[in-house]
Amino acid sequence: MKRMRQILLSLGFTLVFAAAATAQTHDPLPSWNEGASKKAITQFVKAVSSAGGSRFVPPAERIAVFDNDGTLWAEQPIYFQLAFALDRVKVLVPMHPEWKDKQPFMAALEGDLEAVMAGGEHAVVELVMATHAGTTTDELSQIVKEWLATATHPKTGYPYTEMIYQPMLELLGYLRANGFKTYIVSGGGIEFMRAWTEEVYGIPPEQVIGSSIKTEFELRDGVPTLVRLPEINFINDKAGKPVAINQHIGRRPIAAFGNSDGDLQMLQWAAAGSGERLALLVHHTDAVREWAYDRKSSIGHLEKALDEAQAKGWTVVDMKRDWKIVFPFEKR
Amino acid sequence: MKRMRQILLSLGFTLVFAAAATAQTHDPLPSWNEGASKKAITQFVKAVSSAGGSRFVPPAERIAVFDNDGTLWAEQPIYFQLAFALDRVKVLVPMHPEWKDKQPFMAALEGDLEAVMAGGEHAVVELVMATHAGTTTDELSQIVKEWLATATHPKTGYPYTEMIYQPMLELLGYLRANGFKTYIVSGGGIEFMRAWTEEVYGIPPEQVIGSSIKTEFELRDGVPTLVRLPEINFINDKAGKPVAINQHIGRRPIAAFGNSDGDLQMLQWAAAGSGERLALLVHHTDAVREWAYDRKSSIGHLEKALDEAQAKGWTVVDMKRDWKIVFPFEKR
Repeated sequence: MKRMRQILLSLGFTLVFAAAATAQTHDPLPSWNEGASKKAITQFVKAVSSAGGSRFVPPAERIAVFDNDGTLWAEQPIYFQLAFALDRVKVLVPMHPEWKDKQPFMAALEGDLEAVMAGGEHAVVELVMATHAGTTTDELSQIVKEWLATATHPKTGYPYTEMIYQPMLELLGYLRANGFKTYIVSGGGIEFMRAWTEEVYGIPPEQVIGSSIKTEFELRDGVPTLVRLPEINFINDKAGKPVAINQHIGRRPIAAFGNSDGDLQMLQWAAAGSGERLALLVHHTDAVREWAYDRKSSIGHLEKALDEAQAKGWTVVDMKRDWKIVFPFEKR
Repeated sequence: MKRMRQILLSLGFTLVFAAAATAQTHDPLPSWNEGASKKAITQFVKAVSSAGGSRFVPPAERIAVFDNDGTLWAEQPIYFQLAFALDRVKVLVPMHPEWKDKQPFMAALEGDLEAVMAGGEHAVVELVMATHAGTTTDELSQIVKEWLATATHPKTGYPYTEMIYQPMLELLGYLRANGFKTYIVSGGGIEFMRAWTEEVYGIPPEQVIGSSIKTEFELRDGVPTLVRLPEINFINDKAGKPVAINQHIGRRPIAAFGNSDGDLQMLQWAAAGSGERLALLVHHTDAVREWAYDRKSSIGHLEKALDEAQAKGWTVVDMKRDWKIVFPFEKR
């Protein structure tokens, strides 16, 4: 028995040593340049996940919330879900001949984005509702998947699901490897996102929170069905984000990631909890590899949140400076 | 090296053998009598969790949803949350002198349950909203915990959190041990339940779905706060249950457990998916150890769901026949 214990002990020590060596050489965030942003992330993760440390947080409370548009994937020149809605208008117009003489549908059919936008938020909401309602939940999921399989981004020509940020993918994986549960908390449509977030980000449907239209349970020829109605249920933006986080998760996140004023209240809510916190803004500063915009942009407008980040010492990622690459396809 | 491999191999085989022996002798549902109900449960769980089997379901899709009142804990003589609301009226009346001359508050203050009930659903909703709103989410959680620490059930004298069903606790554990994610989907208040479900059932806040009032994000002296408003947000009952399941989980459950007509649509929704399904009703048949009620009861009214269970071959648990014990305190 003594010999066996010796063998097992020596084997154990070897394994521990090997694991430590691996941990030292393996960089979990290879697309992040060394600097203040990367350091803030890794120091935070080490602090909350070090058992016995003064800033340790139990795994169940390691909740991280991510905005989607402009934080996990791009949002220029228009929100990708709006591109989906515009394409849907063309598909659906044979069933809606009245759209040919009615704004914002006329503008959508003519591909006149400026005219669509001239109708303001109301026009966008009308377009999205008209094109996202009337199906069952299962049908919509299928339609979104089919669209993503063929649609491409107008500037890069890549599928929309490749217009995601490589450094943020690494961050999602790094957090999960350290016991975090990663959630999306986006103004985008909850069902639109759920159709692809698991495959693209590794985020399952139950960890996706978004805006929604109302659904109704009905028996269609005896078959239970959830039908999507052209009526707003919840707009998951600004002060709505902490409300939805509480409704869906029931815990206050310890880390929050966003890029616009729509994320301000979510970051405030996460940052104001007790103990270790990470509030981070992705600042779009790279006009060459991506887009540069903030205070003057209508899409991804970033002004109040940037001021508050500076005042409160939140982490602000400078895409141009902090990211080695932006999109996964740059590696090819 | 050869000797070490031999030692490790022999050790490994011993462990595997010991585990197999344990699995054979260990009954995961010791409070369930042998019979059709127990068999339906164990056969279902084995079928969906046997890798390589024709009815295998990947762990991520092993979603099980449970009603709470009358399914996981008792609901007689009144819903326990209503008992909480009645006690809250007494605590809050100094701040609401107008309640002394106004129904249903007068009846609540006099402990006249019949008079409260005479006001119908409207009176109950008014009582619950008035007593559950006006606090922050954190405050309500604390108030519920303090109430549960001292309140006792009028018939048994036990704390409400001990009026839970031992066989259902075992079922929750058995499902989780087989890779299921267990959710509560109840007409009860989401925040009321989240205050204690993790400790009592092992169900974390993010897996609790319930009825809710609206909340609002506001900065109070610069501190981010979620304030509870006296306005209905969502009633999680009947056709609302599949809607809320889709909103929170985004997947269709493969197993659903309820006890009343309020659970019918949830069971229909789960049962109608493709592949292996388990739909189960707890039928309150034990007037001695618990209560016996179904078609004629206003609380836990069970009529349409019982007819449909019989027509569709769903599992109906006969509490008197199928359960060795009902409450954990019977073991003491």
